Amino acid sequence: MTRYTVGIDFGTESGRAVLVDCTNGHELATRVYRYRHGVIDERLPAPDDDVLLEPEWALQDPEDYLRTLQETVPGLLVDTGVDPEEIIGVGIDFTSCTMLPTLADGTPLCMIEELRREPHAWVKLWKHHAAQPEADLINKVAAERGEPWLARYGGRYSSEWFFAKALQILDEAPDVYERADRLIEAADWLVWQLTGVESRSSCTAGYKALWSKSDGFPADDYFAALDPRFAHVVDEKMSRQIESLGGRAGGLSERAAAWTGLRPGTAVAVANVDAHVSAPAVTVTEPGTLVAIMGTSICHIALGAELAVVDGMCGVVEDGVVPGLFGYEAGQSAVGDIFAWFVETAVPPRYHELAGERGLDVHELLEAEAAELEPGESGLLALDWWNGNRSILVDADLRGLLVGMTLATRPPEIYRALIEATAFGTRVIADEFERSGVPVDRIVACGGLPERNTLLMQIYADVTGRRLAVAGSKQAPALGAAMFGAVAAGAALGGYDSIVDASRRMGRLSDTTYEPNPAHQATYDTLYREYRRLHDLFGRHGDDVMRNLKRIQHEAIASRARNPAEPVDA
Amino acid sequence: MTRYTVGIDFGTESGRAVLVDCTNGHELATRVYRYRHGVIDERLPAPDDDVLLEPEWALQDPEDYLRTLQETVPGLLVDTGVDPEEIIGVGIDFTSCTMLPTLADGTPLCMIEELRREPHAWVKLWKHHAAQPEADLINKVAAERGEPWLARYGGRYSSEWFFAKALQILDEAPDVYERADRLIEAADWLVWQLTGVESRSSCTAGYKALWSKSDGFPADDYFAALDPRFAHVVDEKMSRQIESLGGRAGGLSERAAAWTGLRPGTAVAVANVDAHVSAPAVTVTEPGTLVAIMGTSICHIALGAELAVVDGMCGVVEDGVVPGLFGYEAGQSAVGDIFAWFVETAVPPRYHELAGERGLDVHELLEAEAAELEPGESGLLALDWWNGNRSILVDADLRGLLVGMTLATRPPEIYRALIEATAFGTRVIADEFERSGVPVDRIVACGGLPERNTLLMQIYADVTGRRLAVAGSKQAPALGAAMFGAVAAGAALGGYDSIVDASRRMGRLSDTTYEPNPAHQATYDTLYREYRRLHDLFGRHGDDVMRNLKRIQHEAIASRARNPAEPVDA
Repeated sequence: MTRYTVGIDFGTESGRAVLVDCTNGHELATRVYRYRHGVIDERLPAPDDDVLLEPEWALQDPEDYLRTLQETVPGLLVDTGVDPEEIIGVGIDFTSCTMLPTLADGTPLCMIEELRREPHAWVKLWKHHAAQPEADLINKVAAERGEPWLARYGGRYSSEWFFAKALQILDEAPDVYERADRLIEAADWLVWQLTGVESRSSCTAGYKALWSKSDGFPADDYFAALDPRFAHVVDEKMSRQIESLGGRAGGLSERAAAWTGLRPGTAVAVANVDAHVSAPAVTVTEPGTLVAIMGTSICHIALGAELAVVDGMCGVVEDGVVPGLFGYEAGQSAVGDIFAWFVETAVPPRYHELAGERGLDVHELLEAEAAELEPGESGLLALDWWNGNRSILVDADLRGLLVGMTLATRPPEIYRALIEATAFGTRVIADEFERSGVPVDRIVACGGLPERNTLLMQIYADVTGRRLAVAGSKQAPALGAAMFGAVAAGAALGGYDSIVDASRRMGRLSDTTYEPNPAHQATYDTLYREYRRLHDLFGRHGDDVMRNLKRIQHEAIASRARNPAEPVDA
Repeated sequence: MTRYTVGIDFGTESGRAVLVDCTNGHELATRVYRYRHGVIDERLPAPDDDVLLEPEWALQDPEDYLRTLQETVPGLLVDTGVDPEEIIGVGIDFTSCTMLPTLADGTPLCMIEELRREPHAWVKLWKHHAAQPEADLINKVAAERGEPWLARYGGRYSSEWFFAKALQILDEAPDVYERADRLIEAADWLVWQLTGVESRSSCTAGYKALWSKSDGFPADDYFAALDPRFAHVVDEKMSRQIESLGGRAGGLSERAAAWTGLRPGTAVAVANVDAHVSAPAVTVTEPGTLVAIMGTSICHIALGAELAVVDGMCGVVEDGVVPGLFGYEAGQSAVGDIFAWFVETAVPPRYHELAGERGLDVHELLEAEAAELEPGESGLLALDWWNGNRSILVDADLRGLLVGMTLATRPPEIYRALIEATAFGTRVIADEFERSGVPVDRIVACGGLPERNTLLMQIYADVTGRRLAVAGSKQAPALGAAMFGAVAAGAALGGYDSIVDASRRMGRLSDTTYEPNPAHQATYDTLYREYRRLHDLFGRHGDDVMRNLKRIQHEAIASRARNPAEPVDA
């Protein structure tokens, strides 16, 4: 009898479920639920719609996650006619760090009537950026105390991560903090909803909450140094019991079975994170490959047999991607976002008209024209820091740069230079991994960008000097989650005993690969030297032009806020 | 009886004549003639249209200049009903260095039937850039010999200037060089056509042909070191008899009187150059003011009582602008051109649509939106080197740079940053003049840009920290030329005995002035420090990113030319 598994990918705007054949990873059906409240960044969807949010806030409604279960999984059964008896496991992956405060029974605080108008009671989405003061404190105290774990996070803890967000609740809404019996990653909360039993994943704990398999969490006196009330956050609001990826979190509860149409007791996998879960989906379970999840930004995953300190990566977690290996994460904070910005902001009408005439979108037209250029022919070079630099500089204050313009410079040339800049950014990360002892022999790309952009893929191969393979599935995270569902079930039930086994049978690459063109590679080596020079100059060696511009900008905006009626340029 | 004077401004695309009241500078009428052949940069207008030009070439047809006389001056008489008896003088100004080879009687070689298919027989326009190898040789030999005059030209002789163009004729068409009895600035040639007598102006000789009042031309052995056949170029093809600006070149010939409808014998002024002639037209005849002729590029003119060495200026010539003073010239090689490039290349459809809805052109819309910003609020900074840097770096290989972009950056912010960058460029020049002892207490702007761009003018005042006055005439060069016509006639005939007197009575400023806003000035001082840091970093201190990009670009294009069928990105 064929066995099946369900993977559910909880994204930023929607949730996506996929029903997969355990024997070969074939995806029989997909269902997508677009969250009713999406990203909540202007006002709470509370009774009167009158609670406004501050800038940099980004919340979600946990009921959207439950609705995803109810709206998608039953549909998979309808679409395929698969008998729930044949479905042996469920796995999920989630954006991270996306976290929320709950009662001891898992009820989100924002579902309690008297707290619905309290922003801190809601889910803080990964891109909630209002906890920067807390992140700054976390970094400052860690540096002062010489906390050994700081090196595992490239020397800097992000405002997007768990303790920054938790500390913000304590700072700004101590009553909510007090009321919260649990503070938990949405990924782990969702698994709790599926099984009825709280569990915590080594992936979320490791990458976002400073936990490591060998050392556990930071000591209580570190948390006390942040705030005495925060001293026992781990024991009071979290758990020191961390489950390894690939484990079985529990069996599907009666309630969750009713939501989904699956059988009670179906194996539920330990929660995973969207980027990390993609690695086995694209057949990567061993060192030597960089997995690039490419979309608006890029998340990079690499595996190593040993713990290495890599400058400016996002984090390294033992068992964080595949059990038995160290999983390394790095990132580029804007990639597709830069191309979208360019098309939206800097492409003149005739390209839009021409694209319309040819039945292309503007990206496709620019790509076609950019593909006619030789490497280096534009005379342009960019630093791809439109949204700061995540790796390897870990500096959100950095900004974009474009150099080389003449009166003859044309939009396809700039478009190509922007693609090249993001490729140079990836090369910096790949080279830094290699320099630190984490091998990167080839790159496997997944996500939205590789599907659509042949030129971009070729440029990444030429710039990095490495073969690029492309994911076989368009929904690698959901496939990866389904694979972890099959592992949670185990081989005895028709699944697998390890993610490595599952990956070997269920993971897929596309037939398309991109080999470096030696002539282009040589030119790009030359251009990369210039990129590195600018990278180090503006990012490292004390040339603070970008930081000074940001400071001057903030002063100008503050001055305008103080004197709103001041005549401008009068 | 009221006396009148005629000024004729020979521009790049057209010639413009103006009839002016000698008592007050009032412009009674203007006529414009658009050259039939304009800029000749693709093929000669020779019999069969089959002589193609190399890249970087830019020629003109001298008959277009004669047609300008015939088409414009008679029209002025018709328009105003002024009696030619009342017109006491004629002055002209010209682009420079625009030069041509002629016979001993002034006949341009390109008018000789057997030479019409020879590109080197035609007029080389100021922006003919094909003589770079000759300019390089001129500079190299001058540096080796320690020629003292090199410092007067900011340390670098331009490929646009007289001897580079002359030497190119000798190099590439020795027969044409041999055939040429005279090599002459078009400005001087035109005066020759008006008077029937060859004369040479101190302005063209000084700024473009290495002549100075105190030292004359370089020695023959310098020219011999360039090429033995070039040793006696001055005595064989030019003249050591140089007329001072403000002088009378001669009286109008019978032939020229017939062309123009003016009286034979009318005083004709020594030829002038478009930028330099503008100074007295805007009342500037003394040290302390920087005249900025602002259009696609900016030409700066300043006056000094003594000879100073100013780094990176274009040239300093005694009596070169006003007799008795040293005239300094500097320049920015792209200003309005950058704004035009931006609107053409980098402004998305919705701004074009919005401009249309509001009845504005896109520049006006962007200016209105940019005016809403505080200085510094964009977070952007640019280096205004889209066409290289003329002053003070004298480096055509430099390129544009824009830094500070985020995903929130919008077109009006970039537009403002580009305006600010050109203002910083002007400040560099003004500050360099002051540092070298040439005072710049205020700026007077003329040309096409000041009329239209209030925001731009205010930013220039705020950035430079100096009061900005604006020309009273929209055609300052033609007015200035007319003033020199009045000086050629002299006070006895109803004109003036000096350009200073003429300027006092006939020069005009607009009522509009722009005062620095102290708050904006403070912010711009801070931004200017960042600009200077980037300016010196990319322009001076050995960071060769821009030069390397240009080299890589040229190699890429050359490689494409060698392998035209090579598949791209395959």
